[in-house]
Amino acid sequence: MKRSQLFLPTVRDVPAEAEVISHQLMLRAGMIRRVAAGVYSYLPLGYRVIQKVAQIVREEMNRAGAQEVLLPALQPAELWQESGRWEVYGKELMRLKDRHERDFCLGPTHEEVITDMMRREIRSYRQLPVNLYQIQTKFRDEIRPRFGLMRGREFIMKDAYSFDRDDAGADESYRKMYDAYCTIFSRCGLRYRAVEAESGAIGGSYSQEFMVLADTGEDAIAVCDRCQYAANVERAEIAPQAMAVGDEALKPLERVVTPGKTTVEAVATFLGVPPQTLVKTLLYHADGRVIGVLVRGDRQVNEAKLAKYLAASELRLADRATVERVTGGPEGFSGPVGLRGVVLVADHEVRGLRNVVVGANSPDAHYVNANHGRDFAVDRYLDLRIVTAGDPCARCGAPFHIMRGIEVGHVFKLGTKYSESMGATYLDREGKERLMVMGCYGIGVGRTAAAAIEQHHDADGIIWPLPIAPFHVTVLPVNIADRRSWEVAEALHHALQAAGVEVLLDDRDERPGIKFKDADLIGLPLRITIGKALASGRVELTARRTRQVQEVDIDKVVPLLRQIVTEGESALPALFAT
Amino acid sequence: MKRSQLFLPTVRDVPAEAEVISHQLMLRAGMIRRVAAGVYSYLPLGYRVIQKVAQIVREEMNRAGAQEVLLPALQPAELWQESGRWEVYGKELMRLKDRHERDFCLGPTHEEVITDMMRREIRSYRQLPVNLYQIQTKFRDEIRPRFGLMRGREFIMKDAYSFDRDDAGADESYRKMYDAYCTIFSRCGLRYRAVEAESGAIGGSYSQEFMVLADTGEDAIAVCDRCQYAANVERAEIAPQAMAVGDEALKPLERVVTPGKTTVEAVATFLGVPPQTLVKTLLYHADGRVIGVLVRGDRQVNEAKLAKYLAASELRLADRATVERVTGGPEGFSGPVGLRGVVLVADHEVRGLRNVVVGANSPDAHYVNANHGRDFAVDRYLDLRIVTAGDPCARCGAPFHIMRGIEVGHVFKLGTKYSESMGATYLDREGKERLMVMGCYGIGVGRTAAAAIEQHHDADGIIWPLPIAPFHVTVLPVNIADRRSWEVAEALHHALQAAGVEVLLDDRDERPGIKFKDADLIGLPLRITIGKALASGRVELTARRTRQVQEVDIDKVVPLLRQIVTEGESALPALFAT
Repeated sequence: MKRSQLFLPTVRDVPAEAEVISHQLMLRAGMIRRVAAGVYSYLPLGYRVIQKVAQIVREEMNRAGAQEVLLPALQPAELWQESGRWEVYGKELMRLKDRHERDFCLGPTHEEVITDMMRREIRSYRQLPVNLYQIQTKFRDEIRPRFGLMRGREFIMKDAYSFDRDDAGADESYRKMYDAYCTIFSRCGLRYRAVEAESGAIGGSYSQEFMVLADTGEDAIAVCDRCQYAANVERAEIAPQAMAVGDEALKPLERVVTPGKTTVEAVATFLGVPPQTLVKTLLYHADGRVIGVLVRGDRQVNEAKLAKYLAASELRLADRATVERVTGGPEGFSGPVGLRGVVLVADHEVRGLRNVVVGANSPDAHYVNANHGRDFAVDRYLDLRIVTAGDPCARCGAPFHIMRGIEVGHVFKLGTKYSESMGATYLDREGKERLMVMGCYGIGVGRTAAAAIEQHHDADGIIWPLPIAPFHVTVLPVNIADRRSWEVAEALHHALQAAGVEVLLDDRDERPGIKFKDADLIGLPLRITIGKALASGRVELTARRTRQVQEVDIDKVVPLLRQIVTEGESALPALFAT
Repeated sequence: MKRSQLFLPTVRDVPAEAEVISHQLMLRAGMIRRVAAGVYSYLPLGYRVIQKVAQIVREEMNRAGAQEVLLPALQPAELWQESGRWEVYGKELMRLKDRHERDFCLGPTHEEVITDMMRREIRSYRQLPVNLYQIQTKFRDEIRPRFGLMRGREFIMKDAYSFDRDDAGADESYRKMYDAYCTIFSRCGLRYRAVEAESGAIGGSYSQEFMVLADTGEDAIAVCDRCQYAANVERAEIAPQAMAVGDEALKPLERVVTPGKTTVEAVATFLGVPPQTLVKTLLYHADGRVIGVLVRGDRQVNEAKLAKYLAASELRLADRATVERVTGGPEGFSGPVGLRGVVLVADHEVRGLRNVVVGANSPDAHYVNANHGRDFAVDRYLDLRIVTAGDPCARCGAPFHIMRGIEVGHVFKLGTKYSESMGATYLDREGKERLMVMGCYGIGVGRTAAAAIEQHHDADGIIWPLPIAPFHVTVLPVNIADRRSWEVAEALHHALQAAGVEVLLDDRDERPGIKFKDADLIGLPLRITIGKALASGRVELTARRTRQVQEVDIDKVVPLLRQIVTEGESALPALFAT
């Protein structure tokens, strides 16, 4: 394709509307344009990347035995009322009425529509398993749409739904999708991790997220390099610390005055001790009762874990009045010593601490050298804190490290949540009616493209992985007025296209500086520069990622490029070595 | 693909919800399922056809220099208010409010969104022309959605928009799209006609519809076989008849009693004359004034033509009171003799008539042997009637014949309608600001699939044209329990797939009758039957369209099928001759 004929409006300045790098670069490289908050048009270059990602997804879903369908965006309210989600989904669900005043929503996900179809069409165990997927536009009225394609209100997703006879079958379907996802993100040229995750609003018993690793990622992941366990920090399980208990002699409990010092930092500084020698006491309302939680001064309580241990459906920090009533002291001075009438749970780590600082449950006072067992009693030690780097992996004890990532995929074991509420049953071999067991599997297609940029860019622009690049190579004649340059450029353009290499010929009569800058911004993996080397019958081949340059005889360019496109970077290691 | 693993729920009985054959067959062949009125899910078989059509559209649009984009379904009200269509589009436009109570609509078409993008991005004549297209889901809240994919509320369309410097450029863009459309519908294996059409709600100066010909089509088209002029019957222009005037001697005007005879049929029967000897007088309100219209008794007034001649924005038949006031007689007895105070226009054909029957403007009375010139005066002769078979073509005078068709594509010259209302300008070579000249071009993708079925089916099911068939061939072992049959079936399945032939292996343990019926219903172009001929090392190859059968040596099947898929029916004329 000739650059002059491509609708590709690049932008020099960083657009004010864009906070993250992928959003900035997608706007600057003429890939997307904003139509409304969280609503974008995909321009030709952007849509080529979307289609590349979608095609990889499609091939791997087909290979895994899933079948492509297309379900409607318009969904009747009745189906959502049946599943119970019409009420609970809240404002994220975009709702509208048709001309007959009937209620519809725009699908943010399709469990209801597909379960409705399956309960009508599936009669017998012989028809199962079935796994159906679609690549489709979804709608979610995000309270704060931002970051371009990262969090839009209208976005492209692949969603798949599996229906099985039983749990074993569902586990097998889940495994196939998990494997397909690994292949998909590998084929896209992305570094990623699959991590255990909370299931959230979709529900179900177990789920894993696929995270593209990038320093700019919104999500923090705890990763164990020894056993490969990885989980969202909100979920990552920490082993009880194998800490030597009682190394230190117990000192006498002492009450100290700490005027106005209500925070860990303030108390530690005032007393001249590190925050790790403090133990925080937090009071929570959990389904009506009050619970006391102890964690080391520098730790954060993981409320998801706490709620799960307590089996609490509602959990929130106690208000000021409750704190005063329960502890007898003001907020900021709570402590376990002498605290009565509440269940007290502590993070495992607290068990190993000696001579700690705690609140004294009275104004402007703390205790130092408090010790559990002697000065206060803990009802139960649990894994209650948010993981940090170095915490021991619950599976193998090796230290976690923390990485950042962008969620691009999510696989769920749904169990019978939807088949139960919507009555999706089949007759088993014995003629007995049974619930289908479901799974659902999503990939954010636009988000994958954006995550690729977050992972692959530099100060000059995007660095596309070859498999999802909008074109493979740009042919850049430095001076199009030079007849020989122009002839070679056109000939290469033609021959490369004929060889199945996707080529963008920069045929613009612009200064070389502008053309090189544009090429870097758009970030095609390879550039063929037609310049000085032409005198010796050669052109320069440059890898965008490494900036390595190699001179190539003109007649060798097409087979070489063809080989790189087919075999990847291994076809020419010298060019891609960093 | 194995039939047992394909989600393909076929249905024996004709579903009650379906009126037309394509809708019935799409439901029965497990291609689509209804989710709400005019809202469908595409099942795997149906979506394969959609993707085939879409891919042909995509290839030809790209070849014609158009570039693929994807614009959002959610469109902010502000853009539609700017173009003026927010008010005029009415209830067909699906509207909703987001969580911040901002107004949006779901795009039924994308002139506003794309014009908004172009006015921001295009500065200079050097950036023009541009032609952008998308294949996307559209929303129209049809008052009466019906006929399955023919008239849905959510449907898949290809829409393209061209932007040019001037009319000459726009004409060239239009021509390229016209040519691309011809190639697209030919490649889909469809018989079609391009016809002149009214532009309707989209607006613009000139438009043509692409009609797939089918006896069941909703639209009637007047076609001239001599000069190839074709037009929707609402638009088709009729030449003034070269009728020999005055062959017949004028007879004396005579008043006759016609008690209660208010219709052409009743009067003709009562008087014992053919309806062609009557002239109807119809009174219209046209923007406030009353107009009299004369057409031959057996003709229909074409109100679109009448409105155009009168340049009337509102046209309707006069009410009873007006008829009585203007003619002095009751409804059903109006006539031109003695009619005063109204402009009287007549269809060209009336000029050639002698001694006609007309109403007498008084109760239960007509005149016979009325003659223009002598008994009444016509202000103007015009082309005012709806074309019927045999009417002379306005271009060449040859007789029209009438065909029926289904509109699958529509190309419009928009001119500056949108660029003017929305201010889409560019700077020309002289630095002067000028309006971009637009065209827009639509193809109903789902509708094309449905129209293909209307054109290609028989009593047993669908007969897919090869290029858009969901699979090319079904392999049907008559008895899967026979080991040799099953081995050949599996081997052919595998070898055909490897050769790029899309094959569906009916591996179900069902009675042959059921499998043959299903194969006919689904309508793959070719069937390989593995049955009796196996004894002599052969299989039967059957063409669905012709029912012709040919025995083929097993080792020749793959290359033969490969050839048919590549070259089409010409690869094996004997099989496809009817």
